[in-house]
Amino acid sequence: MNFASDNAGGVHPRVMAALAAANEGQVPSYGTDRITRAAQDRVREVFEAPDASVHFVMSGTAANALSLSLLAPGWGKIYCHSDAHIQTSETGSPEFFTGGAKLLLVPGDDGRITPAALSRALAANGRDSVHAGANMALSLTNATEWGTVYDPAEVATLSAIAREMGLSVHMDGARFANALAALQVSPADLTWRAGVDILSLGATKNGCMGVEAVVIFDPEKAEEFEFRRKRGGQLASKHRYLSAQILAWLEGGLWLDLAGRANATAAELAVGLAAFPGVSIDQKVQTNAVFATLPRALHDKARAAGAQYHLWPHDQAEDGDEPVSIRLVAGWDADPADVRAFLSALA
Amino acid sequence: MNFASDNAGGVHPRVMAALAAANEGQVPSYGTDRITRAAQDRVREVFEAPDASVHFVMSGTAANALSLSLLAPGWGKIYCHSDAHIQTSETGSPEFFTGGAKLLLVPGDDGRITPAALSRALAANGRDSVHAGANMALSLTNATEWGTVYDPAEVATLSAIAREMGLSVHMDGARFANALAALQVSPADLTWRAGVDILSLGATKNGCMGVEAVVIFDPEKAEEFEFRRKRGGQLASKHRYLSAQILAWLEGGLWLDLAGRANATAAELAVGLAAFPGVSIDQKVQTNAVFATLPRALHDKARAAGAQYHLWPHDQAEDGDEPVSIRLVAGWDADPADVRAFLSALA
Amino acid sequence: MNFASDNAGGVHPRVMAALAAANEGQVPSYGTDRITRAAQDRVREVFEAPDASVHFVMSGTAANALSLSLLAPGWGKIYCHSDAHIQTSETGSPEFFTGGAKLLLVPGDDGRITPAALSRALAANGRDSVHAGANMALSLTNATEWGTVYDPAEVATLSAIAREMGLSVHMDGARFANALAALQVSPADLTWRAGVDILSLGATKNGCMGVEAVVIFDPEKAEEFEFRRKRGGQLASKHRYLSAQILAWLEGGLWLDLAGRANATAAELAVGLAAFPGVSIDQKVQTNAVFATLPRALHDKARAAGAQYHLWPHDQAEDGDEPVSIRLVAGWDADPADVRAFLSALA
Amino acid sequence: MNFASDNAGGVHPRVMAALAAANEGQVPSYGTDRITRAAQDRVREVFEAPDASVHFVMSGTAANALSLSLLAPGWGKIYCHSDAHIQTSETGSPEFFTGGAKLLLVPGDDGRITPAALSRALAANGRDSVHAGANMALSLTNATEWGTVYDPAEVATLSAIAREMGLSVHMDGARFANALAALQVSPADLTWRAGVDILSLGATKNGCMGVEAVVIFDPEKAEEFEFRRKRGGQLASKHRYLSAQILAWLEGGLWLDLAGRANATAAELAVGLAAFPGVSIDQKVQTNAVFATLPRALHDKARAAGAQYHLWPHDQAEDGDEPVSIRLVAGWDADPADVRAFLSALA
Repeated sequence: MNFASDNAGGVHPRVMAALAAANEGQVPSYGTDRITRAAQDRVREVFEAPDASVHFVMSGTAANALSLSLLAPGWGKIYCHSDAHIQTSETGSPEFFTGGAKLLLVPGDDGRITPAALSRALAANGRDSVHAGANMALSLTNATEWGTVYDPAEVATLSAIAREMGLSVHMDGARFANALAALQVSPADLTWRAGVDILSLGATKNGCMGVEAVVIFDPEKAEEFEFRRKRGGQLASKHRYLSAQILAWLEGGLWLDLAGRANATAAELAVGLAAFPGVSIDQKVQTNAVFATLPRALHDKARAAGAQYHLWPHDQAEDGDEPVSIRLVAGWDADPADVRAFLSALA
Repeated sequence: MNFASDNAGGVHPRVMAALAAANEGQVPSYGTDRITRAAQDRVREVFEAPDASVHFVMSGTAANALSLSLLAPGWGKIYCHSDAHIQTSETGSPEFFTGGAKLLLVPGDDGRITPAALSRALAANGRDSVHAGANMALSLTNATEWGTVYDPAEVATLSAIAREMGLSVHMDGARFANALAALQVSPADLTWRAGVDILSLGATKNGCMGVEAVVIFDPEKAEEFEFRRKRGGQLASKHRYLSAQILAWLEGGLWLDLAGRANATAAELAVGLAAFPGVSIDQKVQTNAVFATLPRALHDKARAAGAQYHLWPHDQAEDGDEPVSIRLVAGWDADPADVRAFLSALA
Repeated sequence: MNFASDNAGGVHPRVMAALAAANEGQVPSYGTDRITRAAQDRVREVFEAPDASVHFVMSGTAANALSLSLLAPGWGKIYCHSDAHIQTSETGSPEFFTGGAKLLLVPGDDGRITPAALSRALAANGRDSVHAGANMALSLTNATEWGTVYDPAEVATLSAIAREMGLSVHMDGARFANALAALQVSPADLTWRAGVDILSLGATKNGCMGVEAVVIFDPEKAEEFEFRRKRGGQLASKHRYLSAQILAWLEGGLWLDLAGRANATAAELAVGLAAFPGVSIDQKVQTNAVFATLPRALHDKARAAGAQYHLWPHDQAEDGDEPVSIRLVAGWDADPADVRAFLSALA
Repeated sequence: MNFASDNAGGVHPRVMAALAAANEGQVPSYGTDRITRAAQDRVREVFEAPDASVHFVMSGTAANALSLSLLAPGWGKIYCHSDAHIQTSETGSPEFFTGGAKLLLVPGDDGRITPAALSRALAANGRDSVHAGANMALSLTNATEWGTVYDPAEVATLSAIAREMGLSVHMDGARFANALAALQVSPADLTWRAGVDILSLGATKNGCMGVEAVVIFDPEKAEEFEFRRKRGGQLASKHRYLSAQILAWLEGGLWLDLAGRANATAAELAVGLAAFPGVSIDQKVQTNAVFATLPRALHDKARAAGAQYHLWPHDQAEDGDEPVSIRLVAGWDADPADVRAFLSALA
C-alpha cells in the first residue's frame, strides 16, 4: 500500500529485458552507439519531429535544469507556477545550471497557470531592462504537480502569450505520458504544435530505471546542449543502458499503457475515497495523483493498516483531531489488491 | 526639478574636498593605506562595533550581492519583501554572487514585512530539505523601497523570528542614513543590537560619488569576504579614494544631516502635493520618497514645467485620462527653489 | 577487438542479477531504502571507515566535480597533474561545480606527480592571497590517466606535502580498483590512511552499468554534499538501482577480480606487442592501459583487422608513414580470443 | 621613492578638475547622462571605431572578466600567457564571470606569447570536443605583465592564428596607454585593425581615480554586456563621475603623455641601475616596469633609504646574501627627485 510516490515503483519487465539484451559485447561509449541512435530516432518518430534533437540524461532535475539553461541566461527571467517542481523541489538546480536566472511565480488553482494570470505576471514584471533582467522563458509542467493537465489548446494559448513577449517555452514533462494518456492526444499536438520549444520527457517514474529525455524541437541549440550536458555530469559513459530503456519504454506504446494504468488506479482511489463520509477530493483527478482531505479517524485507520502516502502540505501534524490533507500517487505498478486493501482498511 | 532618483544628485562639497585632500603622493594600494584604516575605524566607532569587519565596495548591487553570498550558498533560501531591490532591480546579482540561491518573496504593505507574514512564509516553505534547499537568510531593506522604515523593535522582532528558524539577517541599507534620520536612533540600535548580521551601508545616493560599505558584525566571515570581493571585481586598486569619501561623509554627522535634509524635502513635497484636489499620498512619507496619485491634468502640468520623476509602477501610459501614480525622490541636494517651482507649476 | 575504452564494456552478470533482484515491489525513493543503506555500510566496511559518509552518483565527472566542490570554493586553487582527467576531459565541470576554482597543473612523467614537482608548484604559486586565491586541494588520479599507480607511501608523501600547505586531498579513483589490484594493498591503506579526504570511487568502467561512489572520510561535509548532489541533478530518484550495483560489485571481491582481469589482459597485450620489432611500450603497464608506439605498417594491419583503439595523442594522422602512438585499454570483459586475434593480426 | 605599483599613484589634476566640473546639478543616472555619451563618443573617435560599443566599469578585474564572459561560455577555453594577470592575480574572476571557462596557459619569454607557442598550445589542446570543451578566446596583455609589448604586426599574427581556430581575441590593456606610447602607433592599429575583438582599456593606473573602459569592436555583443555589467555589480549609479575621468584623460592626449612620462622614468631607472656593478636588467624595458637583479648589498642600501618595490618573484627572502630580483614600476607621477634619490642611495 505504497502511494507515496511514483518513484517508489519498480522497472517494467520489458525495460529490464531490454537492459539485459543491451548487455552484449563492447560498443562505443558516450552516446555514439547504435542503440542510442535508434532510441533518438524513435523519439523523433513518436513526436513527428524529424529535426528534433534528442538527448538522454539521468535525472528529471537535470533534464529541467539543462533545458532551462538553453533558454535563459543568468540575467533571464523564467515564469512558472508557484508550485512548479523547478521552484519547490529542485534545490536551486535551475538557478545553478542557468548561472542565476530568476524564477518568477505565477499563482493559479489546480497547479495551472491561466492565460490571464500569465498576462498579469508579464505585465507586472515589464519589459526587459538592465535593472530587472530579461524575460526569457515560460515553463509549464504537464501533467502538473497537482495531477491536472493542460490540453493542446491551453498550451497553445499560453505559448502564444509567452512568445508575444519574446519568451521561449519549456515543458516539464516528468509525467508527460500521464498527461497524454489522460488527454488522448498526440505527443506532437501537446508540444511543438502547441508552441513548446523544449520538453523534459520523464521516463523514470513511469516504468524505467533512471533516464529522462530532453527533446529540443529547435535543433539549433543541440550543440550547446551537448557541452552543457557533459560539464553538468550528465553524459553517461555506458550510454546504451539509458537508450535501451527509452527504446523499450516507447516500444508498442508501453509508456502510454503504463501511464494509463497509473491514471486509472488514481481514478479508482478517488472514487473509493469519495464514498466515505467527510472525505473531499480537492483536485480534479486527471492523471495519477489524488489530493484529498480525510477526517482524522480515516487517516488513523489508513496509517494503522500500513498505508504510505504524504501529508500535503507537509507541515500538518501526524497526530491531532483536525482533518488531514493528503496526496496519493499511483505508480504504473500499483497493485489492484493494494487499492482494495487500502479502501477496505478505511471502512 | 529632478525628483527621479537620489542617484541623480551630486557629491557633497566636503566629500569632494576630501577626495582632493586624499590626492597627495603615493600610498599603498588595495586598501592597505592609512585613509582606509581610518575610515574602517570610523565606521566601527559610529556603529559602536569594535569587532566589526568593514569593507568598501563600488556599488550597492555589489554590496548586497556580496553580503548575501556570505550568508547563503547556492542551495540556500533568502527571504525578502516582494518589492525588495534585490528581487526587482538587480538583474539576478544575488543569484549570481551566491551561486544560485533562491529569493523567496514575502508580501506586505508599505514595502514592509510583518512578523505574521514572515512566519507564514517560513512555515509555508518548511524545514531544510535536500529537495527544497536550506533556509539561510532574511534580507530587510531599511529604509524600504517604498520610503517607509522599520524601527529597532520591529527589526529585532523579525530578526528573532528569522534566527529561530536558523536564518541570518542582512540589511540592505542603501538608504540606511535616511532611516536613521527619520527614526532618530543609533546605528547600533538599528543593526546589530536588533539582530542584524551584515549591513550594506549606502553612501553613494546620499552625497558620495561611488562607495558603499559592507559592515559585517560577526568578523568570522571577514576573510571570505575579501576573497569574494576581489574575484567579484570590487577590490578598488586606488582604495584611498573610496575610503576618503566615507570618512568625510561620516565626519561631523554629515551623513545624517544630508539624509535629514532629503527627508525634509520629501515631507515638504508631500504636504504641498496633498493640498491639491484629487491628489492622494499613497504611502506614509517617512524618508525621502513620496508615492502619490495625481489627476492626469496635474501630471501634464508638471511634465510641461519640466519636472522629472518616474511613473510608479512603470507600466502606466504617459498619455491618457486616468490618474497617474508617481514616485518622487528627494536627493540630499534638492533645491528648495525646485520644490517651490514644482508645486507652483501644479497650481 | 575493442580496446578503445573500458567504457565500451558491458555489465557483469552478477551486477545484472542484482538489478533484477532489486526490482521487487515498491520501496522508498531518493536513497532512503534498505539496499542503499546496505551498500553504504558495505563501502564503509570495505574501507574500514565506520564514520565515512558514502554517496552514490551517476557519473564519474559528477563524482569528481561534486567532491572537489566540497574542498574548494570559487576562489580556491586545486593542484592536479597536467594530464588529469579533471583538467583535460571534463569540459570545465570542476570549475562549474566549485563556482570557478582554478586547476593548477603539475607536470610529471607517467601521469604522476612527484613530491618535488608538487613542492615546486606550491612554492611557485605561493601563499593564499586575496589577489591569487587560496590553496585548497590536491587531486591525485589513481590509477593515473597513463595507467600507472601511486602506492600508499607515495600517496602519503604527497598528502603530507599538501596538508603542510593547508590543502585537502581528493583522489580521482575512476580506476581505483585497478590500482588496488595492481598494488595488492587495502582500500584504507591507499586512501584515508595515506591522507586522502575524499575518494571518487569508479564502478561504471569496471563492470557496473552507471554508478560511482563518493566516499567522504571526514563526515562533517556530508550534509553539504547532499544539497550539492541534489541541485547538481545527481540524486537518483529510484536510488535502489544505483545501490544494488555497488553491493553486487563489492560482494565477494568482484570489483578486485574484474580489475585484476583487466590488468592482466593489458599485461598480455603489452608483452605481445613488445615482441614485434620496432614497437616500444611507452609507459610502465601497471593497470589496464597500454601506451605504445608502433611502426605504421603494424598499425595499418591492426586497423585492417578491425582493431579499435585511440591514437594517443589524438592529433596524429590516421594515414602516413611515421610511427603511430596508441592507447589500448583492456576492459574487465576483454575476450582472450580478441587479444590473440589482435596479436596474430600484427604478425 | 615608491616604485611598488602604479596603483600607488594619485589622480592627475586635470582629471580631478573634471570631476569637480562634473559635480554640477542633477543628471540622469546609470549612464544615460551627457558626459557619458561624450566620453563614449570620444573613445570611439580615438579608436577610429564609430560602431564600437563602449562601457565603463570600476575595476580592471571586472573589465577583463566581463569582457571574457562575452567571448567564452563555461565550457570554453581561453588561451593566455602563463603569467597573465587574469591567471595569476584575479582570484578566479574570469572563471566566476564566465561561469567556469578554463584558462589554458601558453609559456613564453618576456611575458609574451609567440606564434609558435600559440600554435603548439592550440594543437596540443585540439579541436572542440564535448569532453574537452570548446576553443573560444585568446587573451593578450599589452603592455605585458613583464613590461614588454606586442606591436601591431605581432598582434595581427597572433590574432590570425587564433581566428583560424575559431577563437576571438581579447586584449587586457591595463597598461594599453604605455604600450601605445612605447610603440608610437595608433589605438586602432594596435587593436581592431590587428584583429582584437574586445579591449579592456585601463585608465586607473595611468592618472585616473577608478575607471576602466571596455571597448567592444563588434557591437553585436553590446546588449549582453549591459546585462552582465549590471548583475556583475559594475553599473555605476552616478555614472557621470566615471565618464568625466575618461573624457579628461583622453583630452589633448593626456593619457599618452602620462604613459610616456611613466615609460621614460622606467627607462631612466633602468639606465641608472645598469651602471652599478653586478646589476642585471632582466627584461627589455619597453614601458613602465623594470625587472632587475641586484647584489644583496645594493638592495639593502635601497631598503635602508626607504625605497619601496616588490621582490619579484615574491618568494625570495628579504634577508640573506644572494642577489635579489626586483620589480620597479614607475607611475605617471613618479617624482624625478625620487629617481635621483633612489640611484644616489645605491651609490
